[in-house]
Amino acid sequence: MVNIRTRDVFATMRPGMLQVEERLEDAARIDFPVVSDLVLGLVRAGGKRLRPLVLLLAGRAFGFDHEPIFTAGAGVELLHTASLVHDDTVDRSALRRGRPTLNSVLPSGAVILLGDYLFAQSARLAAATESPRVVSIFASTLADICDGQLREMFVAHRLDQTREEYERRIYGKTASLFAGAAEMGAIIASAPEDAVQALRHFGSDVGMAFQIVDDVLDFREGTQQLGKPAGHDLTQGTVTLPAIIYASGLNESSAAMTLLRGVVSGELDDPDDVAKVVQDIRDSGALDSAMLEAERFISRAKSCTSSAPDLETREMLEEIADFVYERSA
Amino acid sequence: MVNIRTRDVFATMRPGMLQVEERLEDAARIDFPVVSDLVLGLVRAGGKRLRPLVLLLAGRAFGFDHEPIFTAGAGVELLHTASLVHDDTVDRSALRRGRPTLNSVLPSGAVILLGDYLFAQSARLAAATESPRVVSIFASTLADICDGQLREMFVAHRLDQTREEYERRIYGKTASLFAGAAEMGAIIASAPEDAVQALRHFGSDVGMAFQIVDDVLDFREGTQQLGKPAGHDLTQGTVTLPAIIYASGLNESSAAMTLLRGVVSGELDDPDDVAKVVQDIRDSGALDSAMLEAERFISRAKSCTSSAPDLETREMLEEIADFVYERSA
Repeated sequence: MVNIRTRDVFATMRPGMLQVEERLEDAARIDFPVVSDLVLGLVRAGGKRLRPLVLLLAGRAFGFDHEPIFTAGAGVELLHTASLVHDDTVDRSALRRGRPTLNSVLPSGAVILLGDYLFAQSARLAAATESPRVVSIFASTLADICDGQLREMFVAHRLDQTREEYERRIYGKTASLFAGAAEMGAIIASAPEDAVQALRHFGSDVGMAFQIVDDVLDFREGTQQLGKPAGHDLTQGTVTLPAIIYASGLNESSAAMTLLRGVVSGELDDPDDVAKVVQDIRDSGALDSAMLEAERFISRAKSCTSSAPDLETREMLEEIADFVYERSA
Repeated sequence: MVNIRTRDVFATMRPGMLQVEERLEDAARIDFPVVSDLVLGLVRAGGKRLRPLVLLLAGRAFGFDHEPIFTAGAGVELLHTASLVHDDTVDRSALRRGRPTLNSVLPSGAVILLGDYLFAQSARLAAATESPRVVSIFASTLADICDGQLREMFVAHRLDQTREEYERRIYGKTASLFAGAAEMGAIIASAPEDAVQALRHFGSDVGMAFQIVDDVLDFREGTQQLGKPAGHDLTQGTVTLPAIIYASGLNESSAAMTLLRGVVSGELDDPDDVAKVVQDIRDSGALDSAMLEAERFISRAKSCTSSAPDLETREMLEEIADFVYERSA
């Protein structure tokens, strides 16, 4: 839920974000009519634009609020979009942002190439900043995202995962891009090196919390809110923090553990079994424990903003951190 | 066939190419044992390394023969490899460089992410040159490659294609990376701007010839040489220069045209029909006409080397241009 102060952040940042939007749509334009409309539709449907918002805020914290910050912001958002396109193809998802995914309306080969094209365009935006360091962060972030997604794929259907492995995965998959966005913004604004690192940590912690909240919401909400049934991650074999916490409290030979293991491994795919595990996890308090973990990341993120000389922007950064957490309320 | 002088080029360039190889293998290493072996195997099986060779030669033409030219060379080759990984997935090819493709041994989702990871690593190599212009060429080239591949996909199975459309497609798919490689080499070597442009044209023309020869070979050679039956492009619905030339000499209502149209559209998939069209195209002289076109590109490429101050390197560039053409002999 957007509270009034968060709404203030979005209002204040609106002129800059419109600049980002313009560059984003230009870069996503493709020279094939039908496909172009599909891709533009996907780009336009893109939520709150939190990643470029963090990038712009990191720049603003050091008094910088013009090109090339908008170009970098568009690059970060387009990288995110490209990665969603491939992710939906990998997962064979049917819906994204309430709209049919590209892979549900185009042959998978075309979607792979379209995703590649969007990666290329996002790299062009990063290159247009003409900052070798920004480009280098951009490329490393893409590698981190792929690493996180590959890790998720290779450990799927397995319950023997530690919290550390989970955190490493979600750092790659989600937090790395928030971290990179904040770092790029600070670098473009010529922030001092310790402040660049502090803002990178801010982004990373916000991103970690963002993914944990996402993983909790997957257990809390059903089809209406998220466009997929509650416990969807689990049925895909993706073991997230709530399941790890829940499993750690179970006896290895208990019936609950056998049920959980069956659902995660994919051996049990009856919706009733899934619903039972989801309910057990909700009742166990694991969602609250996971949210506590997200809260810790948010507190740590907020402690990283003190290097920002602009007080108003500092408050806005903290507000966005809270907003990421409060999505779940 | 490698003639002695071409072999001299490879021998002279060997120390630099070993530097490229080292950086390439480092970047292709992945933190998952089995997958890592598959990816390294693919990278190691990679042919003549013509793209980084052109890049190194372009640098050497202006007396430059050390870092960051090796890093950029590795970046170019890895970009090529990443694009092959996705291309094989799009085409569902079973063999590449005489080895099973990644998509024939891994789930397609994993192959998409592995290709993305290789793109990311190639972008990191480009970024490591710390040259905004090199990075910008790199990103534009990736966009051009995707554009060419998308064009090929969207016009598949259609005979109403002009020579210009064909040339635009193969520029994107193949020539853009040769062009970018030569341009990057010249830029890293701080060549004067007119020489940078001349070498870019050299690379582009060599790349155009390379793809035309490839397309001719597809009609000339069968399974043993290329790992696929003669006329494979045609059965995939990919209309290349020989088919365009052949079709332009046919009467719209002739039996030969009906047969060609049937094979290209996919309505006729009997191997005898395909073999008949392939034989008709061979007999028509269209392969020779296409080779003449390739030869024109090679001549033009060789005329672009005059700006290179180093005479030995100039000869080597011309030799490589000839080699690209003579692959077909």
